[in-house]
Amino acid sequence: MTATTLRTALVIGCGTAGTSVALALTGAGVDVALLDEDPQALAEAVALGAGTGWTPRRPPAGIVVIATPPSAVVDVLHQAQSRGLGHVYTDTAGTKEIICAEAELRGCDLKGYVPGHPLAGPDAPGRAAADAGRFTGRPWVLCPYETTPGWALETAAALIGLCGARRLDLEPHVHDRVAAELSHGPHLVAAALATRFARSSTALLGLADDALRDAVRPAGGDPWPWGDVLAHNAGPVADVLDRLAGQLTRAAAVLREGAGSAPLELAVLLEQGRQGQAALEEARELRTPRDARTGDRV
Amino acid sequence: MTATTLRTALVIGCGTAGTSVALALTGAGVDVALLDEDPQALAEAVALGAGTGWTPRRPPAGIVVIATPPSAVVDVLHQAQSRGLGHVYTDTAGTKEIICAEAELRGCDLKGYVPGHPLAGPDAPGRAAADAGRFTGRPWVLCPYETTPGWALETAAALIGLCGARRLDLEPHVHDRVAAELSHGPHLVAAALATRFARSSTALLGLADDALRDAVRPAGGDPWPWGDVLAHNAGPVADVLDRLAGQLTRAAAVLREGAGSAPLELAVLLEQGRQGQAALEEARELRTPRDARTGDRV
Repeated sequence: MTATTLRTALVIGCGTAGTSVALALTGAGVDVALLDEDPQALAEAVALGAGTGWTPRRPPAGIVVIATPPSAVVDVLHQAQSRGLGHVYTDTAGTKEIICAEAELRGCDLKGYVPGHPLAGPDAPGRAAADAGRFTGRPWVLCPYETTPGWALETAAALIGLCGARRLDLEPHVHDRVAAELSHGPHLVAAALATRFARSSTALLGLADDALRDAVRPAGGDPWPWGDVLAHNAGPVADVLDRLAGQLTRAAAVLREGAGSAPLELAVLLEQGRQGQAALEEARELRTPRDARTGDRV
Repeated sequence: MTATTLRTALVIGCGTAGTSVALALTGAGVDVALLDEDPQALAEAVALGAGTGWTPRRPPAGIVVIATPPSAVVDVLHQAQSRGLGHVYTDTAGTKEIICAEAELRGCDLKGYVPGHPLAGPDAPGRAAADAGRFTGRPWVLCPYETTPGWALETAAALIGLCGARRLDLEPHVHDRVAAELSHGPHLVAAALATRFARSSTALLGLADDALRDAVRPAGGDPWPWGDVLAHNAGPVADVLDRLAGQLTRAAAVLREGAGSAPLELAVLLEQGRQGQAALEEARELRTPRDARTGDRV
C-alpha cells in the first residue's frame, strides 16, 4: 500500500479548528482553499497564511474539511457534495453520533464522508488560537461507517498525518460518551462554578488561588459554539451532569447531617477522586512529548 | 507606633503550611522552634532548615503558630496556653467560625489569640511543597475578636509581614463563606469529577485535554486533611454544593427536554459563567506580581 498523497484541500469554516488544520496543511505543502460565510473570518485566516479564498474555478479538492459548529456540518456536507467540491469529506465537530445519523438520513454520499474529530489542546477563546501545531501528537478520532471504502479512509488518514496527529477509530456513540465525560460535562461544570463570581466583590475574588482559576478557565470560552456542542450530545452530557449532581447532593447531605462521621464519609469520595486524578495523570504520561510533561509543543 | 519585632516563634505542626511559615521566619532571622507529634515530620522540617526542635527549656515564644488540621487547633491552643508556650497565638487553619467559637467556649485566653488563615498557592500534595515564599504577596486573613488587644494584633501583623503576605481582616463567617465558594466547594467538585476516571481505560483517558487535567488536579490532594476542612465548614460548603447540584440538574433537564431551545437556554448559563470567569481573572490582575501573571514567585 502506498501512502495517499494529499495535494489539495478545501477547509470550510475558518474558526480555530479549521484555520489550524489549514495552517498545518499549508505548512506541509498542500494547496489549501478556504471558505467561510463570515468574510472577516476568511480574511483573517488568509492573513495568517492558512490558504487562499476558494473560487468556483478550483477543481475538486483532495479532501474537504468541514470545520463548522456541529449543527451546521450535515447541511454544509450535503451542499458541498452536491456541488462536487471534493473527492473525500470529513469534519472536525466535537460530537459524532447525531451527525453520522443525520448524514445518512439526509442522503449524503457516505462513501466519500469520513466523520472525524481532532482533539486539540485547551481552547483559547477566539480565532487567535489557530496554530499549525494545534493537533501535533494529539488524538484525531475517526468514526468511519461500516461501508466507508479504503480510499476514503486513506485520504482522511493522510490529513491526520499531515497535521501530526494520531488516528484513533471509535464508534460514534463511544466517542460521544467519552467526550461527555472528558470535555462536555466538565465544561458545563466549570461554567456553573464560575456563574457565582460575576457578582462577587473583586476584593474577595482576590482570595482565589490558581486551582480555582484553572478549574473555571474553560468557562471563558465563547458560549454559543458550546451551547451547540452540548445540545448535540445531550443524552451523554445529561448523564454526566445528573451523576455529578447526585454526588454533590449526597456530599452536601453528609455535611449537613453527618456530624462526626462526615470527615470519614467525605474521605471516601475524596479518595476515589484522588485515584481518578492519578489515573488521568498516568494516561497523560503515556502520551507523546507534546503534552506529556509541560504542555509545550515539541 | 513602632513596628513590632518578632525575635522568637514556635510553630506547632510541620505540614506544608507550618513548615513554610517556619522557613519564612527563619529566613527573616527569627529564632524558630518546631513541634510535631510525628517525629518524622519534625525531622524533615528541621532538615529543611525550618528551625530547631522545641525543648522545654525555651522561654515563651513571641508568637505560637498552630498549623494543625482545623479539628485539632483549639485543643492545641488550649494546651499551649496552659503550658505558657508563647505570648501571642495564631493558627493557619482554613476554617474559622467553628474554631473561633470553640476557643471561646473552651475558655482559651482570647486576649492572646488571633485566629488566622494564610492563603497559599496551589497545594502540592505532601510536605515537599513547603516553601519560604509560599505566602509572598498572598492574602493572610485575620479574624480578630472584638476584644483582641492591639499588641496581639501587632504581633500577628508582624508575622504576616515577615512572611511577605498581605493582611486582610474578615469576620469568621465571611471568611468561611468565601472559602466555601472559592476553595472548599470547588475542591469537592474536582474530586467528584475525578471519581469516574479511576476505572476508565487508559486509552480513553488519553483523549483528555489540559483543561480537564487542570480542573481535577486539586483532587490529587491528601483526602484526610480535606475531609477535616470540609466538615469544619459544613454549612457553607453544603450550600455551595446544593446550588451547583441544582444548576447541573437543571442543565441536564434542559438537555433532555429542551430540544431546539437547549442551545439558547444553555448559552445563558454559559454566558454567566463567562462573566464570572472574567471577573475572577480581573481580580487576579489586581494582585501582586507573585501570581499576577505567571504564578511564579517574585
